Amino acid sequence: MYLVKIYVTYKQSILDPKGEAVHDALHRLGYTNVDEVELGKYFEVKMHADKRPVATEVDEMCDQLLANVNMETYRYEITEMEAL
Amino acid sequence: MYLVKIYVTYKQSILDPKGEAVHDALHRLGYTNVDEVELGKYFEVKMHADKRPVATEVDEMCDQLLANVNMETYRYEITEMEAL
Repeated sequence: MYLVKIYVTYKQSILDPKGEAVHDALHRLGYTNVDEVELGKYFEVKMHADKRPVATEVDEMCDQLLANVNMETYRYEITEMEAL
Repeated sequence: MYLVKIYVTYKQSILDPKGEAVHDALHRLGYTNVDEVELGKYFEVKMHADKRPVATEVDEMCDQLLANVNMETYRYEITEMEAL
């Protein structure tokens, strides 16, 4: 059993309006020492192994569904969990 | 300068319909070895220190704005960045 943590964020060249909005809201709340906010998606996927390597499958899942590879970039961490 | 990575996810007791939808979509794509998907938000905050500890400020920012503490839980990692 594997726990896969996937982080999807915008590419550097893409404007992140939600991140801007959060940045502005934090400034209005008084956190003027916040310089930049980027907002992304976070997926926690629990999966068990099948015939193919987990990393290969996760790459495919990101490319096919979880990330818009035109605008977004992703990275992930795979942890093996103890069987219960 | 600090890089703060904040992960906001639903509490265990709260239904996560978006995570369910992603789980089902992955199964339809053939990834039937995926057991569970949770979807959360991911914030990357760059900030510089002011008089108060960074962790205290991040806790406050999460409680006041970034997380809905009724339904969501958050965790974060703080990394010190080299000044440019």
